[in-house]
Amino acid sequence: MSTTPLRPYNFSAGPAVLPEAVLRTAAAEMLDWHGSGMGVMEMSHRGKEFTAIHAAAEQDLRDLLAVPANFRILFMQGGGLGENAIVPMNLSRGGMVDVVVTGSWSKKSLKEAGRYADALAVASNEADHHTSLPAPATWALRDGAAYVHVCSNETIDGVEMGELPDLAALGSRAPLVVDCSSHILSRTIDWSRVGLAFAGAQKNIGPAGVTLVFVREDLLGHALSICPSAFDYKTVADNGSMFNTPPTYGIYIAGLVFQWLKSQGGVAEMERRAIAKADLLYGYLDNNGGFYRNRVATQARSRMNVPFFLADDALNDAFLSGAKDAGLLQLKGHKSVGGMRASIYNAMPLEGVQALVNYMQDFARRHG
Amino acid sequence: MSTTPLRPYNFSAGPAVLPEAVLRTAAAEMLDWHGSGMGVMEMSHRGKEFTAIHAAAEQDLRDLLAVPANFRILFMQGGGLGENAIVPMNLSRGGMVDVVVTGSWSKKSLKEAGRYADALAVASNEADHHTSLPAPATWALRDGAAYVHVCSNETIDGVEMGELPDLAALGSRAPLVVDCSSHILSRTIDWSRVGLAFAGAQKNIGPAGVTLVFVREDLLGHALSICPSAFDYKTVADNGSMFNTPPTYGIYIAGLVFQWLKSQGGVAEMERRAIAKADLLYGYLDNNGGFYRNRVATQARSRMNVPFFLADDALNDAFLSGAKDAGLLQLKGHKSVGGMRASIYNAMPLEGVQALVNYMQDFARRHG
Repeated sequence: MSTTPLRPYNFSAGPAVLPEAVLRTAAAEMLDWHGSGMGVMEMSHRGKEFTAIHAAAEQDLRDLLAVPANFRILFMQGGGLGENAIVPMNLSRGGMVDVVVTGSWSKKSLKEAGRYADALAVASNEADHHTSLPAPATWALRDGAAYVHVCSNETIDGVEMGELPDLAALGSRAPLVVDCSSHILSRTIDWSRVGLAFAGAQKNIGPAGVTLVFVREDLLGHALSICPSAFDYKTVADNGSMFNTPPTYGIYIAGLVFQWLKSQGGVAEMERRAIAKADLLYGYLDNNGGFYRNRVATQARSRMNVPFFLADDALNDAFLSGAKDAGLLQLKGHKSVGGMRASIYNAMPLEGVQALVNYMQDFARRHG
Repeated sequence: MSTTPLRPYNFSAGPAVLPEAVLRTAAAEMLDWHGSGMGVMEMSHRGKEFTAIHAAAEQDLRDLLAVPANFRILFMQGGGLGENAIVPMNLSRGGMVDVVVTGSWSKKSLKEAGRYADALAVASNEADHHTSLPAPATWALRDGAAYVHVCSNETIDGVEMGELPDLAALGSRAPLVVDCSSHILSRTIDWSRVGLAFAGAQKNIGPAGVTLVFVREDLLGHALSICPSAFDYKTVADNGSMFNTPPTYGIYIAGLVFQWLKSQGGVAEMERRAIAKADLLYGYLDNNGGFYRNRVATQARSRMNVPFFLADDALNDAFLSGAKDAGLLQLKGHKSVGGMRASIYNAMPLEGVQALVNYMQDFARRHG
């Protein structure tokens, strides 16, 4: 009897696994959404059908993350790399931008912000090869910075902030900008500490091509004159994310994911599951006799993206090939880090992580 | 016996009707693409499965439109309104941009280009309420313009250029930029006259959130310093449209549409069908005793987007409601023009246009 599950477990860092229930609904509704005679991809974004889909997605997201009324939720395009330019075009006013470098993504944000502002790394874990988290008390925050940028979960390096920094307590009056692409909806967000948060949907939500932006209303309306209209948060907000044609199908899929999250118990339940999955995987990585290891400092470890290494790199290909045969997909690490990476987002069940650990144990036994 | 077809005919201007065969394939492959164990939305954009989908879509598109080897094809995000900024950020060099105003879309392009360059309307049909086409010989082209922008099919106004202007013959050395969003793949493109062409996919291809850009290689590499990396054509081209995560599912759907187009006989067959559909609809609009009319000059009429008006505006609601009952959807005109609009893209069969004409005849008989 094969040990391969009916549907393999997919550990991709993004685009990533979606809940099977969501895919089944999407397939069933492909030619006809709710008796409208149209598939969702075929609907005018201004018609009552899609307007209802969009409004429900936004409200469900607001409910799930308890987003306060003074934050606008925008559905945009361009992903995290797009936002790396769009944020400073909207918020920097050409002034100072403080960036906390904790991995590959925040480094990219720092570099791109430099096109529009005086961007400075006010802290960095580069000397640790992005395996630690610089303590907020050590950040060299500048007076008068337009904003402070953090990436609260580094997808490539597997580093996650357990909580968002309290800039006010650090003596800063700058708004905090949070790139939470790869762990959004896996834990609560303390909005009292946030000015703007953004997330590409293709990691913990699913469809690529949708970017979620949560922006405090007082930060709208300060875009640089060179900011494209389609990426000016105020223009997007004033038009209810319909200034340009939104990525309608991706918003629909995201909305189905939000419904699924609610049905499963919401963000609190996702956090409980994330802790259980991470405990299982890190527990094995720390106690396997040295065959595998994760290099990130314990307090900085991501619950979502778990890079790990075989002690013997020469076994990498055999590991990946055997994993695929066992129904465990997309485990190859990012090229900049090497080794393996298991992304264990909301849509990954505990059983998938258990299957991975079982396979890892078996592989170590055969090759150890 | 009901006259409603099993699947209604959808005349939306975009997002718009998709071929039923494409939707059926997408639904069937939703949970497992070609035995990979993953749906397309769940695949890493860098994995071999999606890389193959992307490469096939690009090659099919190149084949369908006979795109020369010195043009790069980019899959981007942001739609036509995004390109209105992205084009001048990449091509204007801060100099002069000549825009031919033929309707709502080229007016938007003119306004947005003004953020980055000395943008000027070198011709306009505004005095005609966008119902005509200014003859190229009358365009006040400027020496040294960085490029000349035209919208070869105005979705809102229903105005289409029968052929692209030959700028060289007009004494200009500027590259021609063509917004062909709403009639791409319905006719051939004379690439010898083009420097850059772009199209939002949500009109004549289907999925919103994908923008196609065709750019001559010599135009790459001149972006303004404030151009976001994710929208710098050279960066996008150098990374094979994978600098940031592309809208993977939309590219997959577009690829299925390209396969469908090939199976139907390609662009030549689409043009033949477009002529037949347009002849049928305009033929009736011009010969119905004055109950309905189209206001666009005969030589300027779009084969794709057909705005029309009832002589008695008070009947509009009854017309739309009866149309819906007859399985004819999304016929309401754009709010800036009023009346009705039938968009009859590649995926609309002749039978759909015939059903519309039949309904219009019946409605006129009952209300005339």
